[in-house]
Amino acid sequence: MRNIFITGGAGFIGSNLVKALVNKHYKIIVYDNLSTGTIENLSSVINKIDFYNGDLLDTDFLINCIKGCDFVFHLAANADVRFGIDHPSKDLHQNTIATFNVLEAMRENNIQKIAFSSTGSVYGEALVIPTPENAPFPIQTSLYSASKLAGEGLIEAYCEGFGFQAWIFRFVSVLGPKYSHGHVIDFYNQLIEHPDVLKVLGNGTQTKSYMHVNDCINGMLHAVNWSNKKINLFNLGTDETITVNDSIKILCNYLNLSPKIEYTGGNQGWIGDNPIIYLNTNKIKSLEWKPKYSIKQGIVDTIEYLIKNS
Amino acid sequence: MRNIFITGGAGFIGSNLVKALVNKHYKIIVYDNLSTGTIENLSSVINKIDFYNGDLLDTDFLINCIKGCDFVFHLAANADVRFGIDHPSKDLHQNTIATFNVLEAMRENNIQKIAFSSTGSVYGEALVIPTPENAPFPIQTSLYSASKLAGEGLIEAYCEGFGFQAWIFRFVSVLGPKYSHGHVIDFYNQLIEHPDVLKVLGNGTQTKSYMHVNDCINGMLHAVNWSNKKINLFNLGTDETITVNDSIKILCNYLNLSPKIEYTGGNQGWIGDNPIIYLNTNKIKSLEWKPKYSIKQGIVDTIEYLIKNS
Repeated sequence: MRNIFITGGAGFIGSNLVKALVNKHYKIIVYDNLSTGTIENLSSVINKIDFYNGDLLDTDFLINCIKGCDFVFHLAANADVRFGIDHPSKDLHQNTIATFNVLEAMRENNIQKIAFSSTGSVYGEALVIPTPENAPFPIQTSLYSASKLAGEGLIEAYCEGFGFQAWIFRFVSVLGPKYSHGHVIDFYNQLIEHPDVLKVLGNGTQTKSYMHVNDCINGMLHAVNWSNKKINLFNLGTDETITVNDSIKILCNYLNLSPKIEYTGGNQGWIGDNPIIYLNTNKIKSLEWKPKYSIKQGIVDTIEYLIKNS
Repeated sequence: MRNIFITGGAGFIGSNLVKALVNKHYKIIVYDNLSTGTIENLSSVINKIDFYNGDLLDTDFLINCIKGCDFVFHLAANADVRFGIDHPSKDLHQNTIATFNVLEAMRENNIQKIAFSSTGSVYGEALVIPTPENAPFPIQTSLYSASKLAGEGLIEAYCEGFGFQAWIFRFVSVLGPKYSHGHVIDFYNQLIEHPDVLKVLGNGTQTKSYMHVNDCINGMLHAVNWSNKKINLFNLGTDETITVNDSIKILCNYLNLSPKIEYTGGNQGWIGDNPIIYLNTNKIKSLEWKPKYSIKQGIVDTIEYLIKNS
């Protein structure tokens, strides 16, 4: 791993990964269409990397930009899980077809190693909690998870058919600097606008695990370094969970606010929401890795980032 | 279920389904691009159905043709599992994207019920044999299985997000009249050309379950009639398996030939082949259904069909 191609490298997780790798003296090539990522996210390292403003659906440009790389982190994705049913083709194009295009661009250039950001939501309404990688074959509950599952399947088939090697990561939700979407930013933005009322999707009991972006990056790099099978599939998360209500408490304490909470009701925040996401991470722990940040620290770091950048 | 739209209705399984449903006095609309299906397959019923020569990638035509239907059997697919790596985009377009287009055409026309032909190969190299529907989350081994898994996920997400209802069937390989691809036709064609030598992919010990197309059709219709959940997912197969070598014996006995068998070796017939496919069918059996045909009868019916139509 010397010349690393990072799709979505200007995004939340991507830009944190770029910084971590620049510090390790790899050559970094970022490919991002800046639909949700920003050049600002990369401002501190922009002179040390190659940046291409490109879309994964522009296959010719992609094939040219990826040339000469020997490892791909494919992190670009439509990640707004909640709004899948407003535009069903978005997940198909930006996740499934985009992943296919990355694989074909790699094949065209004889690049065979790929790390992929999948999601714990591929487990759907999991029957086993905490959910291990070999949980019972799940039913998909969102277009987002279906598109990530499709991406996993494509990558696995390329490993079998074309000798690729893959590291597939099923993440819990990620928190920390550069955070761009999810419940913390939704709540924060509401409280900036109207500090006395907070509207909450669902009944506040949705219980999920979260991970600090630094743990996310460290976990991925650890697995890439220490697991060398044809297909290396890992859950990435923490051993903690938190309810939406407890997230709100941390946020309100930090901001010193006591809003009236209004719930939309039900145990789902939106159609396709999984009320419980808690992953069994024994597999990555067996590689002598563990997360360093608590969920609370992740929330606080996120709020501090949002305050500095609002 | 009155006006039934059948994609791939001119193909092997599709044309058998059309005949079964015409006899039950449904209105049948077949949509097929005749890439592997044929009008000849439908000759006995062509005056009793509406036939559209259309491709699932032609979304405008699809949306028009599906109008007024209330149930969809989505059987059209690229089904040549072996040759996926020769043209990786074929499975993506003809299976994954085609399935998305069917779902969108249904949504456009307010049609919400779909039956889908998936495959037992989504279980990959299954760890549990016979393999139940809730087997451990599998790794995909072919572009074909990855594309069928992607189709399953899309359909499930439409059930959750748009109120669709689905019957998803994971088939073992299917045999019988109108059979168009697979090991029986490969062996038969070889023996017609050179009756004294038979080349076999792999070592002949690959062990798989097969199902007669009549059982396949009956099983699907039974499940549609007797299972009424939001998502109804069933393995379809028999309780028998057969090795490639034993298939050859039945074929050679029937043709009264004793060819020299030449093996390419290894326990896989091709890259991505699953050496063992044997599905646990307890779930569909719990609906008081069971297959009526033996594998031997399936092979014999296939040979008789091939002889009559060669």
